[in-house]
Amino acid sequence: MTDKDRDFTGLKAIFFNGTLTKSPEPSHTEKLIKISQGIMEKHGVKTEIIRTIDQDIAVGVWPDMREHGWKTDEWPDIFERVMAADILVLAGPIWLGDNSSETKKVIERLYACSSILNADGQYAFYGKVGGCLITGNEDGIKHCAMNVLYSLQHLGYTIPPQADAGWIGEAGPGDSYGDKQSNGTLLGFDNDFTNRNTTFMAWNLLHMAKMLKDNGGIPAYGNQRSKWDAGSRFDFDNPEYR
Amino acid sequence: MTDKDRDFTGLKAIFFNGTLTKSPEPSHTEKLIKISQGIMEKHGVKTEIIRTIDQDIAVGVWPDMREHGWKTDEWPDIFERVMAADILVLAGPIWLGDNSSETKKVIERLYACSSILNADGQYAFYGKVGGCLITGNEDGIKHCAMNVLYSLQHLGYTIPPQADAGWIGEAGPGDSYGDKQSNGTLLGFDNDFTNRNTTFMAWNLLHMAKMLKDNGGIPAYGNQRSKWDAGSRFDFDNPEYR
Amino acid sequence: MTDKDRDFTGLKAIFFNGTLTKSPEPSHTEKLIKISQGIMEKHGVKTEIIRTIDQDIAVGVWPDMREHGWKTDEWPDIFERVMAADILVLAGPIWLGDNSSETKKVIERLYACSSILNADGQYAFYGKVGGCLITGNEDGIKHCAMNVLYSLQHLGYTIPPQADAGWIGEAGPGDSYGDKQSNGTLLGFDNDFTNRNTTFMAWNLLHMAKMLKDNGGIPAYGNQRSKWDAGSRFDFDNPEYR
Amino acid sequence: MTDKDRDFTGLKAIFFNGTLTKSPEPSHTEKLIKISQGIMEKHGVKTEIIRTIDQDIAVGVWPDMREHGWKTDEWPDIFERVMAADILVLAGPIWLGDNSSETKKVIERLYACSSILNADGQYAFYGKVGGCLITGNEDGIKHCAMNVLYSLQHLGYTIPPQADAGWIGEAGPGDSYGDKQSNGTLLGFDNDFTNRNTTFMAWNLLHMAKMLKDNGGIPAYGNQRSKWDAGSRFDFDNPEYR
Repeated sequence: MTDKDRDFTGLKAIFFNGTLTKSPEPSHTEKLIKISQGIMEKHGVKTEIIRTIDQDIAVGVWPDMREHGWKTDEWPDIFERVMAADILVLAGPIWLGDNSSETKKVIERLYACSSILNADGQYAFYGKVGGCLITGNEDGIKHCAMNVLYSLQHLGYTIPPQADAGWIGEAGPGDSYGDKQSNGTLLGFDNDFTNRNTTFMAWNLLHMAKMLKDNGGIPAYGNQRSKWDAGSRFDFDNPEYR
Repeated sequence: MTDKDRDFTGLKAIFFNGTLTKSPEPSHTEKLIKISQGIMEKHGVKTEIIRTIDQDIAVGVWPDMREHGWKTDEWPDIFERVMAADILVLAGPIWLGDNSSETKKVIERLYACSSILNADGQYAFYGKVGGCLITGNEDGIKHCAMNVLYSLQHLGYTIPPQADAGWIGEAGPGDSYGDKQSNGTLLGFDNDFTNRNTTFMAWNLLHMAKMLKDNGGIPAYGNQRSKWDAGSRFDFDNPEYR
Repeated sequence: MTDKDRDFTGLKAIFFNGTLTKSPEPSHTEKLIKISQGIMEKHGVKTEIIRTIDQDIAVGVWPDMREHGWKTDEWPDIFERVMAADILVLAGPIWLGDNSSETKKVIERLYACSSILNADGQYAFYGKVGGCLITGNEDGIKHCAMNVLYSLQHLGYTIPPQADAGWIGEAGPGDSYGDKQSNGTLLGFDNDFTNRNTTFMAWNLLHMAKMLKDNGGIPAYGNQRSKWDAGSRFDFDNPEYR
Repeated sequence: MTDKDRDFTGLKAIFFNGTLTKSPEPSHTEKLIKISQGIMEKHGVKTEIIRTIDQDIAVGVWPDMREHGWKTDEWPDIFERVMAADILVLAGPIWLGDNSSETKKVIERLYACSSILNADGQYAFYGKVGGCLITGNEDGIKHCAMNVLYSLQHLGYTIPPQADAGWIGEAGPGDSYGDKQSNGTLLGFDNDFTNRNTTFMAWNLLHMAKMLKDNGGIPAYGNQRSKWDAGSRFDFDNPEYR
């Protein structure tokens, strides 16, 4: 692989941080995001972190909740940036073993926009790639990632290999990712599994986003909502009927 | 898109059917598999359905359980076919809202083989694509698919957009997919959502499998277990340490 | 069973409705709640429905978010009513196969109060019973209920038999619970499974709440956080150490 | 609470161990089971551990699979012991973040017996209590417990407060519960959270099993399948219909 193959200039990535803690309080999840973001930035990707709890994002299942009884809603503006990005990473904390309400709110709003189609009649998220970063003091990375990655592929994102990473400590309450320990180290920063998965995820998102871009997205045949609705069946045929 | 772009000759696909019903009893899940299989076959793909309950697959977390106290184990032979296939679809029924023990057994055996690396040092499943088909008389497609698709991407499979499909009926017990109704129709066969998702999934698996094959798999940089273990870090860098 | 055994006067129940739709728009979930509520009211129980999206409940993991940067927070007041109630039912809709962000927000705030102990040193939720009601147009009752019921028992609630009920339609988008059909009927209202489970759940919550009240709650031995922290071990003993 | 209140003589408990490792190899999960079992035995409870992988339990969804094409099936005999027990604990390992296929197999067989009713017409599992113990080297106690506890309550078991416990290590592969460490200690045995939860769970299962026994089970009204099927509605009434 040449240096040129590792140049991802032109790609954009958005990280949503579903922490329940408002700025300027530190977010443990953000510490992990920064590792992934750092790799991307170093190779030409333009990145952005959106900490949803600092934003005025309405709750609901419509693209613009101002049309449904909410006075304000920053989602329509954020959604434009989501559409402009090639890579989406949903990151967040674990609470009682599950994704935070902030993470769920973002998934709901993405889902609210899932009726939008691209020029080929595919769902608008086709051609983009998705990943997941989870932190907690204990238990639940995989449970949370299952839901996030499932949601993203359902919306039209491609999920590259090993697209989730995270850190949790041993069973039970305790310090969280990046907390300073009595010996001066930062908790979890030396976890080989977390570091490796976070690195692999970042690279796989880059490789897949570039491959999709270079190939013009997911080929438009057999997956066009507009054509299906107009009657195309793309060789669908229930053999039991024959 | 030209006819040539719809020719997938050379690709191979394996469908695992995790039904709890032994042959020759009919399997509802198999009826749905056949729709997906039909599309693939029509475009040159060589396919195979493995109904695991008919096979002598041992339970456990090693590549060959005959080395761990089991007299017989057909998995090593099956696993060779999994390695030869470009597309893997885990299909199965829902029991009490969750995947069947047969589906779990297959995931465990795939996981048991996850230490195998390819020539580039990536996990051996890299470059392959995965999907999921679920049937039940009620409730649980998404729950089951979350687990299946999560497991596949964790092992190294790429998940294309909308890689899950399925059928369930209204809440409560009742007939299953493909059961003959009093009016002579086959239950669920006219479900537009099921038919569309099954079709889109088949095509997206084909498109992505071909794209990965044409591009030589997932580019080997930043995701090689062998190199990470040997000390490469691929620009991983925790910014808080600096 | 005598009439007296079916008198539950003195019990209180709270239903949280995690719909994403603000009043005065109708909530499908509320229609199902009313069946359960009706049975309880008829037998002397004082009930209340809290539609969280109509309330000004802050997001976060502290008992009172006004102490953590939020200007307003109605949770402390609501939590007093939760503490006064014997029965808690978390009800809500399904979005993309999972609980709504409103349902997650309530679970987070309950969890935020889990350090509170009762006079015996047990978690403050001990002695109360919990249930779950879920509606959606398709797929996910059990997935959502798993998370709700797990969370409640983890906090200290007792879960009686068959403590979840719900309604979903056949796979795919479509009308929701209680929507008027072209033939004038209300969708799902004739679903025997939904009606039976909703009825059984209501009665089992009543029976268990009364039994716990009559027996003075969960006996206070072996489960007192305060005593454990003070060194009591209640015959805990790791046999491998001996 | 007097000594008499801590005497549970007459109660029976069964622990299923869903490990994928056959005897005589050690099971990590068994080490945790023994803590819970020890507390119960010390207070008069008769207990039994069933390691399912050592048994010849058929796969399927019928009470006796010998009537459905299987030559042998030890489940009918085991099920009699389940019916004789007041307490059921499903214990098992985590594989790829989920319950083992052995744990799923047991849940399927319990579910296969869910049409059996007691003398009052309630599901046969009414009046019994259920819990869950999970071990893994990393991540997934809550995810696994959600599924186990949900399944048990759905079948008719009562879930007392804090009915799950477990141990996992920090994110990433590593030693498992009870593995001897280089300093001679046994991994996880000093985990206060695991020890406390395992102890609380044991006591809460005992308290609730006794309370249910002393009260004659769950009162039989409003929850009798036989009466519902015969037309009783127990004050069920959809208010929208009125």
